[in-house]
Amino acid sequence: MDYRFAKRMDNVKSSAIRDLLKYAEDPGIISFAGGFPSPEVFPVEELREVFDRVLSEEGRAALQYSSTEGYLPLRKKIAERMKKINIDCDACNVFMIHGGQQGLDFAGKMFIEEGDTIICETPSFVGGLIAFNPYLPKYVGVPMDKDGMIVEELEKALEANPKAKFIYTIPEFQNPTGVTLSLERRKRLVELANKYEIVVVEDSPYREIRYEGEPLPSLKSFDTKGLVIHIGTFSKILSPGMRLGWVVAEEDLIQKFVTLKQSADTQTGTLIQRQVNKYMELYDIDKHIEGIRKLYKNKKDLMLETMKKEFPEGYTYTNPEGGLFTWVTFPEGVDSAVVLKRAIAEEKVAFVPGSPFYPGGGNANHCRMNYSGVSEEQIVEGIKRLGRIFRSLSAI
Amino acid sequence: MDYRFAKRMDNVKSSAIRDLLKYAEDPGIISFAGGFPSPEVFPVEELREVFDRVLSEEGRAALQYSSTEGYLPLRKKIAERMKKINIDCDACNVFMIHGGQQGLDFAGKMFIEEGDTIICETPSFVGGLIAFNPYLPKYVGVPMDKDGMIVEELEKALEANPKAKFIYTIPEFQNPTGVTLSLERRKRLVELANKYEIVVVEDSPYREIRYEGEPLPSLKSFDTKGLVIHIGTFSKILSPGMRLGWVVAEEDLIQKFVTLKQSADTQTGTLIQRQVNKYMELYDIDKHIEGIRKLYKNKKDLMLETMKKEFPEGYTYTNPEGGLFTWVTFPEGVDSAVVLKRAIAEEKVAFVPGSPFYPGGGNANHCRMNYSGVSEEQIVEGIKRLGRIFRSLSAI
Repeated sequence: MDYRFAKRMDNVKSSAIRDLLKYAEDPGIISFAGGFPSPEVFPVEELREVFDRVLSEEGRAALQYSSTEGYLPLRKKIAERMKKINIDCDACNVFMIHGGQQGLDFAGKMFIEEGDTIICETPSFVGGLIAFNPYLPKYVGVPMDKDGMIVEELEKALEANPKAKFIYTIPEFQNPTGVTLSLERRKRLVELANKYEIVVVEDSPYREIRYEGEPLPSLKSFDTKGLVIHIGTFSKILSPGMRLGWVVAEEDLIQKFVTLKQSADTQTGTLIQRQVNKYMELYDIDKHIEGIRKLYKNKKDLMLETMKKEFPEGYTYTNPEGGLFTWVTFPEGVDSAVVLKRAIAEEKVAFVPGSPFYPGGGNANHCRMNYSGVSEEQIVEGIKRLGRIFRSLSAI
Repeated sequence: MDYRFAKRMDNVKSSAIRDLLKYAEDPGIISFAGGFPSPEVFPVEELREVFDRVLSEEGRAALQYSSTEGYLPLRKKIAERMKKINIDCDACNVFMIHGGQQGLDFAGKMFIEEGDTIICETPSFVGGLIAFNPYLPKYVGVPMDKDGMIVEELEKALEANPKAKFIYTIPEFQNPTGVTLSLERRKRLVELANKYEIVVVEDSPYREIRYEGEPLPSLKSFDTKGLVIHIGTFSKILSPGMRLGWVVAEEDLIQKFVTLKQSADTQTGTLIQRQVNKYMELYDIDKHIEGIRKLYKNKKDLMLETMKKEFPEGYTYTNPEGGLFTWVTFPEGVDSAVVLKRAIAEEKVAFVPGSPFYPGGGNANHCRMNYSGVSEEQIVEGIKRLGRIFRSLSAI
């Protein structure tokens, strides 16, 4: 059947990489391609108690429709957590969503018309690009170094694109690079946003998974003009299978999010909101997060130590202070998509090639490696296997 | 701050009616305005057991990311249920969503470009219009009578709008009218869809809540060209606070839904899908639905009996064979929005006025009344109060 699809559907095709990564689902393969939290950190026993109490104490309310804005006691708790990191907000500034990705989709839907410019880091989070693509934007990429987005380049981009709709950034332990925006650049980024009166979409899924260095203020904490939309999620600090996240923004913007939510899926699940709220009432989520940090630090250290031993010269990688990923740079001219095919076929090991993280493609000599979702044994064995592939390439 | 919103945001403003209905949240008010299931039917005790078993038997998998298509065992169960109503499908045709509303949003996103025509019933479900509005369609309304959409009028609309993107319909116990599309018209509607090769969005949230008359085949069961998108939900048969629904469609279309889901919110919650799957494994959902039917039939009968006694001449109402709503028609010239203001202020009783259900507005002499979410005492008392208001209007 020749369906009359909207033009935007041409921009949301499944990527070749995704198809390639289907092979990585073979359980015999060690995959560094995912972005999964480690299942061993899920507080299963605590949640058994929590779910039971929600149903016995407030079951009928928990199973019913509720407000589009989200469950007020949970929004209050989140506002309190946001205040602790110096974000000036109240429950009325907090809006519940079905995971951080939904915040990105809504930001796209709220601002982007066909041909509008979005300014993003290069490389940038694929999920962000996927969220914005249906609204048919153009991307202007700002290069990064070890301190995140280069703000001098950002200023040039803003000057050249005064009508750009927003700046999209992951300031901490960025996906895919693992890099963190420095304090000085954070201040400068918000100054520039104020000067050009442009919205900043601050995507903050990994913020609390910091295991080295000092926590830095969020961009939202510097916001004086209501320009920063801060997106948080329980996916990395509690469970991604729950699909629960939040937006912190100016009330005018929250009202727009609410109308989009009514259109999109009515409201975020009442049940899951009350379950997470009860969990936060009965348990110390900060203590729980502490456990995640320790585990991921060990895994990250192990991955980098093994890379140091096993990777040949010319292969470098970032040293993230938190989050789930390191970014590997291959020698110029090595195409990571080609290497991936060999890695899967010859060594049963997988990663995500770099090109899809660049809105304009290219930059093939990179890959993203995840350490949170794999065991220590898999890290050691998988990196050894990759090392063999890399050495065989260097030998050619 | 003067935000640079996309043009579509002008089309998603919160309605005046919604603002008015905020007064109806006062607990002293008897509100027939909602569309809530009765909380007494939620299987709270059964779900306590189910949630506990999911966490103890498959907790780590239930809390993790999973496939965008949805949880396979649940999709298989839904496919089996769909086969029982003669829909030719398999798990690969079933796609899980965060409630029926998300299916409507995705249909809009998939097909509508600015200015495209959508053909819908008049009156039509407000939630459908809200889902499509951000994509800036034009609506062509097809009038209804007691047997649903008048297919002769539909044919004229199709002839006049050969490039229309889809027909949107709720064939059973339509929201807002409570009316059901007859068997003959169902067949004719799909014939016309085939002739004009136009997609049909079959929104089916109330299908299983039939308490009178014979079940009729779904539109999807007549579909031979892959044109019908069937949307179902657990909201009315289990719990709306879970936010869980499904789409049944041709595989080509399912692939498009999957890409939109990745953009919009990655995947439907793993946890809730496994919980509902386990519920269906351990309990007989059909027996549960039987209980809902009995309860709603009693409430509907009571509401109509009381209306018969209390409403003055010139006020008529539909007699739905299922679902949650009846549609009241006031004498010509009576504006239901004006009546609502008085009803709230003078008698503390609320309903939804008719105009917002018409894409072009007007038709003010109607209102939608819900009986599922109110108690029998509230039905009798609320209808008495409304009767007083109506009689006072007639007396003027």
